[in-house]
Amino acid sequence: MTVLPLTPDELLTTTRSVRKRLDLTRPVPMDLITECLQISLQSPSGGNQQGWHWMVITDPDTRAAIGELYRRSTERYLAARAQAMSGPGGPAPDSPEAKTMRRIRESSAYLGEHMGEVPVQVIACIEVNAPWEAGGNQAGLWGSVLPAAWSYMLAARARELGTAWTTLHLVYEKEAAEILGLPGNIRQGVLIPTAYYTGETFRPAPRRPVQEVMHINRW
Amino acid sequence: MTVLPLTPDELLTTTRSVRKRLDLTRPVPMDLITECLQISLQSPSGGNQQGWHWMVITDPDTRAAIGELYRRSTERYLAARAQAMSGPGGPAPDSPEAKTMRRIRESSAYLGEHMGEVPVQVIACIEVNAPWEAGGNQAGLWGSVLPAAWSYMLAARARELGTAWTTLHLVYEKEAAEILGLPGNIRQGVLIPTAYYTGETFRPAPRRPVQEVMHINRW
Repeated sequence: MTVLPLTPDELLTTTRSVRKRLDLTRPVPMDLITECLQISLQSPSGGNQQGWHWMVITDPDTRAAIGELYRRSTERYLAARAQAMSGPGGPAPDSPEAKTMRRIRESSAYLGEHMGEVPVQVIACIEVNAPWEAGGNQAGLWGSVLPAAWSYMLAARARELGTAWTTLHLVYEKEAAEILGLPGNIRQGVLIPTAYYTGETFRPAPRRPVQEVMHINRW
Repeated sequence: MTVLPLTPDELLTTTRSVRKRLDLTRPVPMDLITECLQISLQSPSGGNQQGWHWMVITDPDTRAAIGELYRRSTERYLAARAQAMSGPGGPAPDSPEAKTMRRIRESSAYLGEHMGEVPVQVIACIEVNAPWEAGGNQAGLWGSVLPAAWSYMLAARARELGTAWTTLHLVYEKEAAEILGLPGNIRQGVLIPTAYYTGETFRPAPRRPVQEVMHINRW
């Protein structure tokens, strides 16, 4: 099992969402997934409760069933997004921003079609004690599993696996819970397709400058 | 600016929540914070929207004001937790679990008292488009900022800074928003006290075994 000799900064700046360059034919050993999950469990969780649960889906029929939910949700999402993009608030068609968005749309559409074929689907879940129908800020709850999910992706990247962070299937969270036999107090946070990466290298991506999003002492 | 030569696995398994071993007297250069934030912005966000915002608080009065909210919330939380611990569902007083919980309670109480003195408080925020009073799963929203917040902590750890993940102040989210002048569409996700680390080394922590939280194909 090789772990790439990445520096902390390389690791943190080159773990991209891989949607197209996923090897759909090469199986990923379960040991490798277990190792990445084991590492992820060193992340913080509220009050150190460790209420996380990880669904690891390799069975072809189950993957296909989750994939179908994902396909439907992606289709809806992309249609809504295309409409928003072409509206008055959207970027000019020739702008770099529009170009990036087209690229993401294209790769999202690809993943939407192929999610069911990705060799391993990982769903990060969390145990909830109370119903959340009342609304309110759920950052405390999600802070108890999403950092671990991100650590899983970082550990996977260091093992030459490609992953993507996606929550589109949550539109059909109930249907997915039925497929997976989840108890009623388990909620799903993120779906992470995992496969060997077929691209060459990972690079940092363009981002909004930090100065635009950093506020010192007061907004 | 030195970045420790940590392997990916070392980085991911030794970034602990530091509550007591924070140097409250040594200032942290703003460049160091900016660098950690810049790295964190390479994390995924829903539809690559990058709707994150980062409050970086160094002004002593503002820190003290946030610290006071945090102190009150910690006090309430620890009182409730102590009651739950001593109840019939709690661990036996001599168990390793109870010992860990006592240690966390002690360090949480310490941070509750000293949050206002930590040289830098960072609050990771996210822009919301719709009110969430209706309830429902907010994992999509929080997945657009909490991975970046965790990357910030990982980048900080590689720079010999100690940080902690805490959401206790969110009980007083509105009061904090007023202190910081946040617009109404900005919600707070996590408060990360940041300071030079005064301990010796960081080590992996005991955790529930991965086998207990990993479910293959079906719960």
